[in-house]
Amino acid sequence: MSESMKRLVGLLRQLPGVGEKTAQRLVMALLNAGPDFGPALADAVREVAERVRPCGVCGNLTEESPCELCADPRRERGLLCVVERVPDLLAIEASHEYRGLYHVLGGSLSPLDGVGPDELRVEGLLARLPGEVREVILATSASVEGEATALYLKRRLSALGLKVTRIASGIPVGGELEYVDRGTLGRALAGRREL
Amino acid sequence: MSESMKRLVGLLRQLPGVGEKTAQRLVMALLNAGPDFGPALADAVREVAERVRPCGVCGNLTEESPCELCADPRRERGLLCVVERVPDLLAIEASHEYRGLYHVLGGSLSPLDGVGPDELRVEGLLARLPGEVREVILATSASVEGEATALYLKRRLSALGLKVTRIASGIPVGGELEYVDRGTLGRALAGRREL
Repeated sequence: MSESMKRLVGLLRQLPGVGEKTAQRLVMALLNAGPDFGPALADAVREVAERVRPCGVCGNLTEESPCELCADPRRERGLLCVVERVPDLLAIEASHEYRGLYHVLGGSLSPLDGVGPDELRVEGLLARLPGEVREVILATSASVEGEATALYLKRRLSALGLKVTRIASGIPVGGELEYVDRGTLGRALAGRREL
Repeated sequence: MSESMKRLVGLLRQLPGVGEKTAQRLVMALLNAGPDFGPALADAVREVAERVRPCGVCGNLTEESPCELCADPRRERGLLCVVERVPDLLAIEASHEYRGLYHVLGGSLSPLDGVGPDELRVEGLLARLPGEVREVILATSASVEGEATALYLKRRLSALGLKVTRIASGIPVGGELEYVDRGTLGRALAGRREL
């Protein structure tokens, strides 16, 4: 492999989930993708690296601050959905089920990894509340850390007189009971609703 | 997602094996990798795209033609290993079991996909032979197309008075017989050697 290919493989390998084989495969694909592809990709990478920053209000990744979601007058300003990371926000947007605002924490509480409230965007969240917000939806993940983060936030927010909700946990749509793990089944039963 | 992020995701999705989720994950990882990473990656992509070309002799990807393998005086010039693609060459190099030269065909014969001998680097191979070469090792894959390509090349090379060999097919190292497919087991038996 040539020096420039080795250098590119080395950089790609620094990305999480990209090993030697995947990096090599990406470099080969880049070289097979036609003469215009490489320069276009290089420009796009540089633009993203130079222009994209966290939104000063919600923490979403954006080229302008406040971001397009915070600035959108059609979004419901009474609803604030708290997520761990930007991909979670993108997943909720892709569901087309939510039209409120967001707050990205930047992770979840994990004392063993040295992540306490000060490492997350918690003060920024409190600074936005209550304002116009009526309800805070805690959409942290259903992991131990995500649950701990939700409970911690619930406690911090309880004095503000807001409605604080947690997204439902249960059987995934299309999921067969037989193959669902015990924990999820337990949650699904505990969270049952009247029809 | 911002415009520049959407553009980068769109380009990454053109690479084989990269879907929407993987592309998004790569963009997020790029943004999390520190301020120097993005520009460094953009430069590396551009350099590869501008500098790397197929070697005029063997078809390996290189910044100079002939490539470092063709030009290396320590390589055995009597051995020529024919592979389908550059990643196959890299895999053989990584095994440290081979010190001869290579020839990259650019694929395998596949009439249904419109790939005949003219679409592969076959004439370039014949133009190199016999010269110093004593043995041609056919290291095309063990698929139907790879076998057909090996048989075709064997026929084309037979008049040149060369030794033509095929890499062995059989149980992978560490493989348990119980879990090996019928075809591989059949090949392993047919290709048995005296101990």
